[in-house]
Amino acid sequence: MGTRALVLFAHGARAASWATPFERLRDLTAARLPQVPVSLAFLELMEPRLPAEVAQLASGGVDDITVVPVFLGQGGHLLRDLPLLVAQLKIDHPGVAIKVVGAVGEDPAVLDAMTAYCVASLT
Amino acid sequence: MGTRALVLFAHGARAASWATPFERLRDLTAARLPQVPVSLAFLELMEPRLPAEVAQLASGGVDDITVVPVFLGQGGHLLRDLPLLVAQLKIDHPGVAIKVVGAVGEDPAVLDAMTAYCVASLT
Repeated sequence: MGTRALVLFAHGARAASWATPFERLRDLTAARLPQVPVSLAFLELMEPRLPAEVAQLASGGVDDITVVPVFLGQGGHLLRDLPLLVAQLKIDHPGVAIKVVGAVGEDPAVLDAMTAYCVASLT
Repeated sequence: MGTRALVLFAHGARAASWATPFERLRDLTAARLPQVPVSLAFLELMEPRLPAEVAQLASGGVDDITVVPVFLGQGGHLLRDLPLLVAQLKIDHPGVAIKVVGAVGEDPAVLDAMTAYCVASLT
């Protein structure tokens, strides 16, 4: 029964506009989880990076972090980079439980919504 | 009223497994559009690239192509690379109408589904 936090983990990009849907996702999620801090963290190119965000949460007393990869496909970033990052974070923060769930793009309901969008784009 | 096709445009990655949710999206979309060819095309690292796919469709008699960017954020790939690709394709295929719609990640229903997934990941 720790103090929990949810971190939405995204790739990052050079264009600031890139982050807009991720910020909207963070805000929508936070509105549905009023008792849990919900934040964004990035792999590269944008701040905060995941290690800085986890350190920040840990220093604030969070000891149970769920990381949601906001990625469509599971490529090298999720298969290799994220596990390495999380392994290091577990060493750096031994008192913090860190769980990584599947990528949003693998979720059937997300796929259904994307399908509906693709179908509608033709009409 | 031309002969239409729908192209789902994704980034591409080195890991073949990365394409799995995109292939599922293509199959789900195709099942709902039995009269329209639905295909995947990539920006980089995977085949077919967008120009090859458009050339293939055009040579098969398609003259009205809708491109759906299967991206979450609109960064340099969608703000710069894709418009340049499409501008060149319109020069190369003057008889083919090519329309690009918004990225799937900007769609409110897709955001809602991602939100539900993020919320559920905590429980």
